Amino acid sequence: LVPAGRWLRPQDIGGLVAVGITSVSVAPRPLVALIATGDELVSPDMEVSPGQVRDINTYTLSGLVRQAGGVPLPLGIVPDDRKALREAASEGLKKADMLVISAGSSVSTRDLTAEVIASLGEPGIMVHGIAIRPGKPTILAIASGKPVVGLPGNPVSAMVVFNLLVKPALYRLAGCTDPPAPPTVEAYLTKNIASTAGREDHIPVKLEERDGALWATPIFGESNLITTMMKSDGTALVPLDKLGLAEGQRVTVTLFRAG
Amino acid sequence: LVPAGRWLRPQDIGGLVAVGITSVSVAPRPLVALIATGDELVSPDMEVSPGQVRDINTYTLSGLVRQAGGVPLPLGIVPDDRKALREAASEGLKKADMLVISAGSSVSTRDLTAEVIASLGEPGIMVHGIAIRPGKPTILAIASGKPVVGLPGNPVSAMVVFNLLVKPALYRLAGCTDPPAPPTVEAYLTKNIASTAGREDHIPVKLEERDGALWATPIFGESNLITTMMKSDGTALVPLDKLGLAEGQRVTVTLFRAG
Repeated sequence: LVPAGRWLRPQDIGGLVAVGITSVSVAPRPLVALIATGDELVSPDMEVSPGQVRDINTYTLSGLVRQAGGVPLPLGIVPDDRKALREAASEGLKKADMLVISAGSSVSTRDLTAEVIASLGEPGIMVHGIAIRPGKPTILAIASGKPVVGLPGNPVSAMVVFNLLVKPALYRLAGCTDPPAPPTVEAYLTKNIASTAGREDHIPVKLEERDGALWATPIFGESNLITTMMKSDGTALVPLDKLGLAEGQRVTVTLFRAG
Repeated sequence: LVPAGRWLRPQDIGGLVAVGITSVSVAPRPLVALIATGDELVSPDMEVSPGQVRDINTYTLSGLVRQAGGVPLPLGIVPDDRKALREAASEGLKKADMLVISAGSSVSTRDLTAEVIASLGEPGIMVHGIAIRPGKPTILAIASGKPVVGLPGNPVSAMVVFNLLVKPALYRLAGCTDPPAPPTVEAYLTKNIASTAGREDHIPVKLEERDGALWATPIFGESNLITTMMKSDGTALVPLDKLGLAEGQRVTVTLFRAG
């Protein structure tokens, strides 16, 4: 009636009760441990001194985890200290079904994060660096049979990589063998977008309907600013083999979930 | 920073914490009382005798209410009895922010439901019957300042009308002045769809990608069967002024939420 591995929609539940099935076995919601690392990070309720920034990723990623059917387990901010990070990561890996570390923006924090992830267990890091922008310094690992992801500290990159790679993994952890694809629309670009061959770009865009057609305006500004994502309705894809896209060209926009 | 009346997305929460805002006032989730009427209805955990059907709408509508950010308050099955239905409806209207009655399929149940809705308070019934299919016998009313909706008992019609009319109302009750539109895609029809001018048709369709284009296959079968919706990815629109759409024509498909 309903194939295993499918997300139950309201009509699927309706179809089950229609034939008298009032109880079904479902997969538990995956628990996702979230760690934010970096000496520059402070809690959002703190005043910031020069050189400090408030932790954003714990909050945006918690929301994205919930959207994908998971339960966030925020473990807070961990300073750039190997022992502290290793302890927090081990705790997260033990308690949760998946561990996500957003790794600060300094090279030393990233290196430390990579070392700690590599130390968590076999087989360890599978992928270090991916050909997308933003999101290049992403780490994908498996330790003790559980997925571990090192996300860029930049909140825009962290969201882009989460939606692209972590969300589908989370659906699968939840037993969903045929994860729903995020909705996309086709739109025309209002501005040129530069890219580089051999790299996939995911550009935040604002959508607008004009004369019955959909137009996408790239939201540039500083790439690490979360306001970029607040102003956007989704991300436009510049494929791997393109040097960019020109104003007026068609582009596929993956929509953010809004409500 | 975030305009009032907007559904808070993960990045909006991120943007708030970025500037140290750790607490915001939000509208409460609207409570939606759900009543299923009809002497033929039995609870899903009961055996069905000839002439009986299990209550499906309480369950599908509960799921749809949750998808739209509301909280369902199921009041159960009420028999075709004026006094019982009036009592349940008054209770629902008192406790909840919105009342939804799915009104069985017999003419007498529908008439009774309309009478009871009309008796709940001023200004009463605003709309009785709408030019869409399925969903014609829909009732829209306001009583004591709260919206009251009489939905068709047919589970397919109830879902179509809920998505089309009740969901946007629910967003507004939740203080969302700019409700997010449900995602749509453009597809080509694999079969003819018949319609009538002066009526909007919402046809459940299954989507399939073929050679890079999206094709929509209408799922016909019995119009009151919930399995129609289980097999579908969304509904295709035949506009008010069309006598139907032909195989190969483009059609706009509003997608069901899946995960």
